[in-house]
Amino acid sequence: MKKIVIDPIGVIHSPYKNSKNIPIQGRFKDKVEAFALIKNKYKEGLRDLQEYSHAILIYHFHKIKDEKIVAQPYLEKKDHGVFSIRSPYRPNRIGFSIVKIKKVDDNKLYFTEVDMLDQTPLIDIKPYVEYFDKREDVRSGWIEKHFKDGKIPEQTILK
Amino acid sequence: MKKIVIDPIGVIHSPYKNSKNIPIQGRFKDKVEAFALIKNKYKEGLRDLQEYSHAILIYHFHKIKDEKIVAQPYLEKKDHGVFSIRSPYRPNRIGFSIVKIKKVDDNKLYFTEVDMLDQTPLIDIKPYVEYFDKREDVRSGWIEKHFKDGKIPEQTILK
Repeated sequence: MKKIVIDPIGVIHSPYKNSKNIPIQGRFKDKVEAFALIKNKYKEGLRDLQEYSHAILIYHFHKIKDEKIVAQPYLEKKDHGVFSIRSPYRPNRIGFSIVKIKKVDDNKLYFTEVDMLDQTPLIDIKPYVEYFDKREDVRSGWIEKHFKDGKIPEQTILK
Repeated sequence: MKKIVIDPIGVIHSPYKNSKNIPIQGRFKDKVEAFALIKNKYKEGLRDLQEYSHAILIYHFHKIKDEKIVAQPYLEKKDHGVFSIRSPYRPNRIGFSIVKIKKVDDNKLYFTEVDMLDQTPLIDIKPYVEYFDKREDVRSGWIEKHFKDGKIPEQTILK
């Protein structure tokens, strides 16, 4: 199978310079703000994005060197297959986050619900569409028990 | 900025051999079934995925050659920035779909809510997690008016 070459569309400027205190998902620390700086040749692509409340960011875990096919997630000390956890130590090291749009200004997209490191290469931005991306009757596998009854586990923020 | 080289984790076997009759999102034709065939070296990564109801697939629009920074989406004859539409004619041609898991069998993931072509290279699989990926108070930009009052527009199925 042929390899695919990705040319980043821009870079994320985030207050998280390393993994200390970073949330496993941005919504667990939802006041922190970051911005994506888009290459000039793509800035027209941001047109109308501000009409959406949320965006999907697809990016590269650029600090991660290895992949683990079976691993322990942050939430529990138990092995799971990498495709049933959200760990960055995965084949191709592709990250995916849903963020809250604050504003678009020229070639910058400002957002909250940040869970990526500073200088993360950005691969794509897609609008989060209620009719496409929101699912009802979701079973969340081994993760479900950790969020039962509305509780938020401590391990949602890295030490 | 450095380029990123992606080595697909597997390939999608889909009944859609070309774009005719394919839905713009899998849920608009939710009985169709497909499977992802994962490379043997990654098959242990599928462990525990079957406990989830939905998976996020990240893949490559391998049949698309060009990118359009401003374009008309399928749903309306009006220009929008590529990052506010879900068109495949985008920088890096990365696709993203939420699919419904039917079963995992050895190195095969069977699913419904299919919107990708046969032989699509698969880049990553992530579990869809209610507490991470489901958002309330969503504004869906220019798309919103097309799905008002529960109606499904005709253009959700390609001709």
